[in-house]
Amino acid sequence: MFSPENLMAAFDRVTDYWSPRVIGQVNDQLLKVAKLKGEFVWHAHEGEDELFYIVKGALRMEFEDHTVQLREGDILTVPKGVRHFPVADEECWVMLIEPASTKHTGEVVTDRTRSLQDQLS
Amino acid sequence: MFSPENLMAAFDRVTDYWSPRVIGQVNDQLLKVAKLKGEFVWHAHEGEDELFYIVKGALRMEFEDHTVQLREGDILTVPKGVRHFPVADEECWVMLIEPASTKHTGEVVTDRTRSLQDQLS
Repeated sequence: MFSPENLMAAFDRVTDYWSPRVIGQVNDQLLKVAKLKGEFVWHAHEGEDELFYIVKGALRMEFEDHTVQLREGDILTVPKGVRHFPVADEECWVMLIEPASTKHTGEVVTDRTRSLQDQLS
Repeated sequence: MFSPENLMAAFDRVTDYWSPRVIGQVNDQLLKVAKLKGEFVWHAHEGEDELFYIVKGALRMEFEDHTVQLREGDILTVPKGVRHFPVADEECWVMLIEPASTKHTGEVVTDRTRSLQDQLS
């Protein structure tokens, strides 16, 4: 028996900002939900693209040479190796798609870094 | 410069049922949108999982030994090799995530089969 996951129910279970939760898998990619607010940290994922889908709110994605403003319903893939800095002026709900190998804050480790284990618990 | 895709704008461009359109890529997976109505065909993707996210409406996914009713916001991954038969009693909008190698109707080929080239055009 296969059971679906519900996206909104998954967001209801998220209590901390910048702390993704794994809600599904397709092939070698994980599907995650996260609530974002404020600034994150500059980082890159050397070997993995990361897809952002804005479910609610807005997100400003800063790159080294330009900024992309994301609104509800927008989808953006940050290519592997590209440094990015997500900023949510107001609370933003995102769905993420990235491989299991993706490190949350790339090669940067801060007290805000979440391990994959954290994201599964 | 990176540019986002908007999910709702992508659905606005879809005019045919059961005819997925590629709207993004993350690593080796394609992100697609499709509008579904009525019955599709029984098929399996031998080597690829396929993720369904119900953006609007409802979808009944029939398997050989059980049926899963999907509603708005529900997410279900059909594992590789599993025969499935999607039925939408009313119009349903889905986001799909699957590898570029995925054949639309698996090893079954009908007049409803769309090539990857069709899905990119």
